[in-house]
Amino acid sequence: MAAAIDLSSPYSPAARSPAPLSTRRFSLRRCPRRSTTVRCSLDAAAAAAPKQAQGPPAAVAAEEAPAARKECYGVFCTTYDLRADEKTKSWKKLVNVAVSGAAGMISNHLLFKLASGEVFGQDQPIALKLLGSERSIQALEGVAMELEDSLYPLLREVSIGIDPYVVFEDAEWALLIGAKPRGPGMERSALLDINGQIFAEQGKALNAVASRNVKVIVVGNPCNTNALICLKNAPNIPAKNFHALTRLDENRAKCQLALKAGVFYDKVSNMTIWGNHSTTQVPDFLNAKINGRPVKEVIKDTKWLEEEFTKTVQKRGGVLIQKWGRSSAASTAVSIVDAIRSLVNPTPEGDWFSTGVYTTGNPYGISEDIVFSMPCRSKGDGDYELVKDVAMDDFLWERIKKSEAELLAEKRCVAHLTGEGNAFCDLPGDTMLPGEM
Amino acid sequence: MAAAIDLSSPYSPAARSPAPLSTRRFSLRRCPRRSTTVRCSLDAAAAAAPKQAQGPPAAVAAEEAPAARKECYGVFCTTYDLRADEKTKSWKKLVNVAVSGAAGMISNHLLFKLASGEVFGQDQPIALKLLGSERSIQALEGVAMELEDSLYPLLREVSIGIDPYVVFEDAEWALLIGAKPRGPGMERSALLDINGQIFAEQGKALNAVASRNVKVIVVGNPCNTNALICLKNAPNIPAKNFHALTRLDENRAKCQLALKAGVFYDKVSNMTIWGNHSTTQVPDFLNAKINGRPVKEVIKDTKWLEEEFTKTVQKRGGVLIQKWGRSSAASTAVSIVDAIRSLVNPTPEGDWFSTGVYTTGNPYGISEDIVFSMPCRSKGDGDYELVKDVAMDDFLWERIKKSEAELLAEKRCVAHLTGEGNAFCDLPGDTMLPGEM
Repeated sequence: MAAAIDLSSPYSPAARSPAPLSTRRFSLRRCPRRSTTVRCSLDAAAAAAPKQAQGPPAAVAAEEAPAARKECYGVFCTTYDLRADEKTKSWKKLVNVAVSGAAGMISNHLLFKLASGEVFGQDQPIALKLLGSERSIQALEGVAMELEDSLYPLLREVSIGIDPYVVFEDAEWALLIGAKPRGPGMERSALLDINGQIFAEQGKALNAVASRNVKVIVVGNPCNTNALICLKNAPNIPAKNFHALTRLDENRAKCQLALKAGVFYDKVSNMTIWGNHSTTQVPDFLNAKINGRPVKEVIKDTKWLEEEFTKTVQKRGGVLIQKWGRSSAASTAVSIVDAIRSLVNPTPEGDWFSTGVYTTGNPYGISEDIVFSMPCRSKGDGDYELVKDVAMDDFLWERIKKSEAELLAEKRCVAHLTGEGNAFCDLPGDTMLPGEM
Repeated sequence: MAAAIDLSSPYSPAARSPAPLSTRRFSLRRCPRRSTTVRCSLDAAAAAAPKQAQGPPAAVAAEEAPAARKECYGVFCTTYDLRADEKTKSWKKLVNVAVSGAAGMISNHLLFKLASGEVFGQDQPIALKLLGSERSIQALEGVAMELEDSLYPLLREVSIGIDPYVVFEDAEWALLIGAKPRGPGMERSALLDINGQIFAEQGKALNAVASRNVKVIVVGNPCNTNALICLKNAPNIPAKNFHALTRLDENRAKCQLALKAGVFYDKVSNMTIWGNHSTTQVPDFLNAKINGRPVKEVIKDTKWLEEEFTKTVQKRGGVLIQKWGRSSAASTAVSIVDAIRSLVNPTPEGDWFSTGVYTTGNPYGISEDIVFSMPCRSKGDGDYELVKDVAMDDFLWERIKKSEAELLAEKRCVAHLTGEGNAFCDLPGDTMLPGEM
């Protein structure tokens, strides 16, 4: 079952090779460097006194500014002044959110949630920076058009592009969803390499152009190791700022405990997903609570907890594909919203949430220098701290160690992408979650 | 270009022929008649003291209650008591929202918006009643599973089914999205007949089992005439409660005016879509305003307004399909949200919104007894009134009359479904909007 290959492409953190801007089939317009209120204006006169336009302005601008680096889209190129408007002058400063894989199904749900104010609040204007691929650029325009037609008052800027060094500029959040799916017969080590290269490149781009305190949530699989690769390639951004998404696993685990106990899901709390977002993940029923009581006091069926619960959580994506014919884009998008909201709102007293984070200085004895899902709390400032007082028993610990071993193996397999020499792949058997192949 | 066929199936408002409940492959559980707080309980003891469950409760219940009429899904079959919880006891009474075509792409966006509280507010718990077809029942389960995994606190009940007489029971909102797409070579009259039959049946079902004041929004095309058929088959529900969705057209028209004027879209107001949701629709630039000023004062390019503007709005869906490869599900869902919010929130002073409504007693001189999109205002009580003081000129009036003529022709074509004798189809040329074929 173990695959061993040597991936010897050299590591080059300093090198950057931005993709060339492709010839665009949509009209674009020069966007001057950002000021506080005026953005992407047609020209200075129009910016000062936007009164009327005679012809299609986009087409005109396309001729004027063929080399524009930032590419705003359509109505999001118009000027506005939040301070001049009674309704908007109390709003917060614009937040820049970059999303990769922006033409995909998960993003198709997520972007509209971001734009609606559901994630950052009704006084938080937002700029969306959409990263796609050469192949998906037309679809990306389609997404931008639908965002235009949605008339979200909070959505003030949308730009689209295929170069992460352009799209990630000044990003305060980077939601990295885009990744290659595994093709037929592809070894998992090969997937790690292919996607790892994407995340190495995006890490470098974030390091070069994003906000110095950008928060990064990696969704593209294998997300823990992709997050590790990303943070290793972004040495100027705190490693603590990188997350691997395990929130859908947490949500699914809560729902399954609720179903088993016959209670509504809002009664389940303190649910930790430990480890890797793979079949070695550990949904923790030792520390989770139902109606404030330990799960084991409420669900006496230990056999189910130990043998069925985890499998049921993990099988969920596969069952969904069978029934639904597609993967769980909507609930994945919801879980990304949950993950962000958990960082920008104070965690309720006594509760916590799960997220895959860099293990440096963890109190549990988990290996340092990997990305591991653990229980966290936040003051709502975008940052988090690990929860220290969790219980551990042999059953839980053995499974945690298994997931840790897998992540250490994945790390060895991508050493060429993290700056730790040549890669050596001795991965255990296939641990991709069903429905995420 | 004109198609003339005779559709002579007899009209039978009293007859009801509910589809038989298909054999279900998912487990279901008996849901007792609704009381104020306890719903779909496993059994009386569990409802009184939901403490623990030993086995998979759903499977057990499936054996106990094979003939259950209401089919709650999974965790939404658990009991809860909103009044017993500090966080939820100030919430409003549960609202029942039925959605047809619930396994489709528009619903896949809409349902999550409904569940999040974005539509009805953060103190409004919601029950979703999902109507699908025999063919889509597995996909419907997939949707329900994703709703489970989303852990929305406000979403308290989800039921799925294929019989509108079951699913629409007590519905306070019915969002009728499901309709057959037009097949290759199909005459528009045939589409009117096929979909008309669906909406006749659903009208009868609403008449029989929905709340007496249910608000109905018809999205499935041709939506104006489908709405007319629906309301004619629901004589016990006020005709005023039926809407045909023209809000996406309104949103697109606002965006195009904003683009042309070089302003952000929040500066465009008083946008009316008159008439049919088809290529005869009339986006009204005579009454619309930009920054509070008449559009014609801001956009001096009369040729563009008269010749290009309407076409640009109408082509939008087609362009999107070209770019994106699929129809505009996300922005359609957003426009349904907008349509509902316009009815449950007071309309801002001086502004209005468009919706296709029954023309009885309209002040504009438009034919009575059709469903026509017109400018409306709401006090936020779910009801609306027509806006009376709108300007009219020859250019606008001629186009309105053309759309009216089309709707009168559509009405003659579905007379067998509205109780007005035999149908006679003399429809003008193809007026389906691009992207909605």
